Amino acid sequence: VAKAHGFPTVVMIGGGQLSRMTQQAAIALGVELRVLSQSPTESAAQVVGEIFIGQHDDAAAIEKIAIGADVVTFDHEHVPLEIIRDLESRGVVVRPGSKALAHAQDKVLMRQKLESLEIKQPKWKVLNSISDGVEFANVVSYPFIIKVSRGGYDGRGVWVCKDETELADLLSQPLGSDVQWLAEEFIPFERELSAQVARSPHPQMIAYPVVETQQKEGMCSVVIAPAPNLDPERAVEAQRVAMQIADALDVTGMLAVELFDTGSEILVNELAMRPHNSGHWSIDGAITSQFENHLRAVLDLPLGSPKAKSEWTVMVNVIGGDFSDMFHAFKHCMARDPHVKIHMYGKEVRKGRKIGHVNVSSEDLEDALRRAQHAADYLIGNIEE
Amino acid sequence: VAKAHGFPTVVMIGGGQLSRMTQQAAIALGVELRVLSQSPTESAAQVVGEIFIGQHDDAAAIEKIAIGADVVTFDHEHVPLEIIRDLESRGVVVRPGSKALAHAQDKVLMRQKLESLEIKQPKWKVLNSISDGVEFANVVSYPFIIKVSRGGYDGRGVWVCKDETELADLLSQPLGSDVQWLAEEFIPFERELSAQVARSPHPQMIAYPVVETQQKEGMCSVVIAPAPNLDPERAVEAQRVAMQIADALDVTGMLAVELFDTGSEILVNELAMRPHNSGHWSIDGAITSQFENHLRAVLDLPLGSPKAKSEWTVMVNVIGGDFSDMFHAFKHCMARDPHVKIHMYGKEVRKGRKIGHVNVSSEDLEDALRRAQHAADYLIGNIEE
Repeated sequence: VAKAHGFPTVVMIGGGQLSRMTQQAAIALGVELRVLSQSPTESAAQVVGEIFIGQHDDAAAIEKIAIGADVVTFDHEHVPLEIIRDLESRGVVVRPGSKALAHAQDKVLMRQKLESLEIKQPKWKVLNSISDGVEFANVVSYPFIIKVSRGGYDGRGVWVCKDETELADLLSQPLGSDVQWLAEEFIPFERELSAQVARSPHPQMIAYPVVETQQKEGMCSVVIAPAPNLDPERAVEAQRVAMQIADALDVTGMLAVELFDTGSEILVNELAMRPHNSGHWSIDGAITSQFENHLRAVLDLPLGSPKAKSEWTVMVNVIGGDFSDMFHAFKHCMARDPHVKIHMYGKEVRKGRKIGHVNVSSEDLEDALRRAQHAADYLIGNIEE
Repeated sequence: VAKAHGFPTVVMIGGGQLSRMTQQAAIALGVELRVLSQSPTESAAQVVGEIFIGQHDDAAAIEKIAIGADVVTFDHEHVPLEIIRDLESRGVVVRPGSKALAHAQDKVLMRQKLESLEIKQPKWKVLNSISDGVEFANVVSYPFIIKVSRGGYDGRGVWVCKDETELADLLSQPLGSDVQWLAEEFIPFERELSAQVARSPHPQMIAYPVVETQQKEGMCSVVIAPAPNLDPERAVEAQRVAMQIADALDVTGMLAVELFDTGSEILVNELAMRPHNSGHWSIDGAITSQFENHLRAVLDLPLGSPKAKSEWTVMVNVIGGDFSDMFHAFKHCMARDPHVKIHMYGKEVRKGRKIGHVNVSSEDLEDALRRAQHAADYLIGNIEE
């Protein structure tokens, strides 16, 4: 693939929808996107000029795709750190780098780091034994949360532990060699927020409007940008926390900080160092999408304005249901509402799988919520008119 | 390339920037875009999953790429009509079809058709001899315009004829077998406008806001959306003219009608049946871009809202100059103004070549004009700060 003189090449490891949507931004920037995909049928593999087929834990495949590229980045956090450290030691530019990524991959490391930064978070404890769990229950009382320290996502690897019997059951499950049990205080939050920032090596940083996220069965379902009725000081606090973490961890690219809003304070729940589901609204709703700013940040280009273009933008995920005739529903949604922006990921429908999302911008939040939810429900097959 | 069940495949003939930008829309729609490109280094060939290499007048190449596709469409109007008619006779769906395209390919046919529709246009005459030209000069007086009926674009194939000597000089040039000399009245217009509509086979039609276009050396340079100080009745008239033409010619896909605004009336200058330079503002400035609506129209999907998202959007083309270090300038522009949307086409800089464009949206027209013009000038190398 040729490109204009001086324009860079970005390698993205992982061929999912985040890579797919990054390609839309790469096209405008004149940046070549090269993707390592598990198969030629993956979401991004369908729409990118340069595809390499390989696994994200195959060091040789990653070494090969990195040749001649300006920077290597990721659409998920599952690339083994040894591979990334090895690339770095050979002078390959990897962003975010291994030191930052370690905290996105390992929740215990992340909790330790946030503690050292004195950032508010739920109480937590590594459980090496049932008695550690009993001790933790004495501090926070049941129910509390038990997570695997590595490898969980979209609600997988997370349990609510109601009593000592469940505790014993959970901890009797086998764990990978580098994985630990992490107990976290159950936070009776009023809602969840996400604060996204982009940070370049320069370093320059921009903060997106703080959004409200609603989960369904552990998976992001609805995002409202900006978060309604959020005290402006609280919003600034959330943006500051995200910027503080990005700086302290030397994050380059997008960082999403998922937060619990208890009504009286905000506590850090999770980190993601890549474009994130909570930022999909920005494709249609912000001057610069999170995908464009991720590319700009990892390439150390000046960052684009994260300003919202509309009063409100609502994103609703399209999750696979029982309904496989997506194209028929797609046509109906377009006919019913010419203002809905539908984003399909080129995936076959499978139950519980993220296969697309819709964005609706409006000056009226109720209107945007109703229209976005209707379109997503119709696409999923939950409603029929 | 695999894609989700039921989702269609679109073939686009031509691998230029229009195909490149159509790919951004195809990604969101979950539509597979397959491009016939002259070389693997063309603008769209860099960013599309399925590239076929071939010339746009190679019937066998076009026949091959059309296999299994739902519809064939174009990023330019240079595919010979015989090839399109032949595809149609075999049942291949081509949109726009040969009957419509004939009028975009042949300016004499276009003038005849508009005359039969009683649509206002400059006086015109086919010149088979110098005496035809002298006769036309007696009606409209010098100077008048002489064009080749087929194959001209971006100001090529168009001359201003000042007197009989020039007339004789021009007409002494050799013409292709199917090409005629077309004389047109010189219109001392106040400005030029463009009215774009999308029309589907259904038929459904949407009209974009009418824009003002400014040309430099025969090439589109600046577009202001919507056209400033345009009488609302005049705007509706322009949209009606475009819709009337789209209906009468059975256009499917995008139609751009370029108009002369004389201050007292609007006259049709040119037609283009594809996404058009005058619609690039819509990528950032409208709810649905012209590229998305072209795909939706040729696939007979319901059309998206053409509504503007901002008070004003200004587009300025980036035309190649003497300055080849585009990437350095690109970084400067991003740093200087985080609100400018830069669109690069992946092309090497060549003098007079369209290599990108910038869009700026604002509530203040002067502000948008100044910022877009500055970014484009800097990228081109016209200014250095």
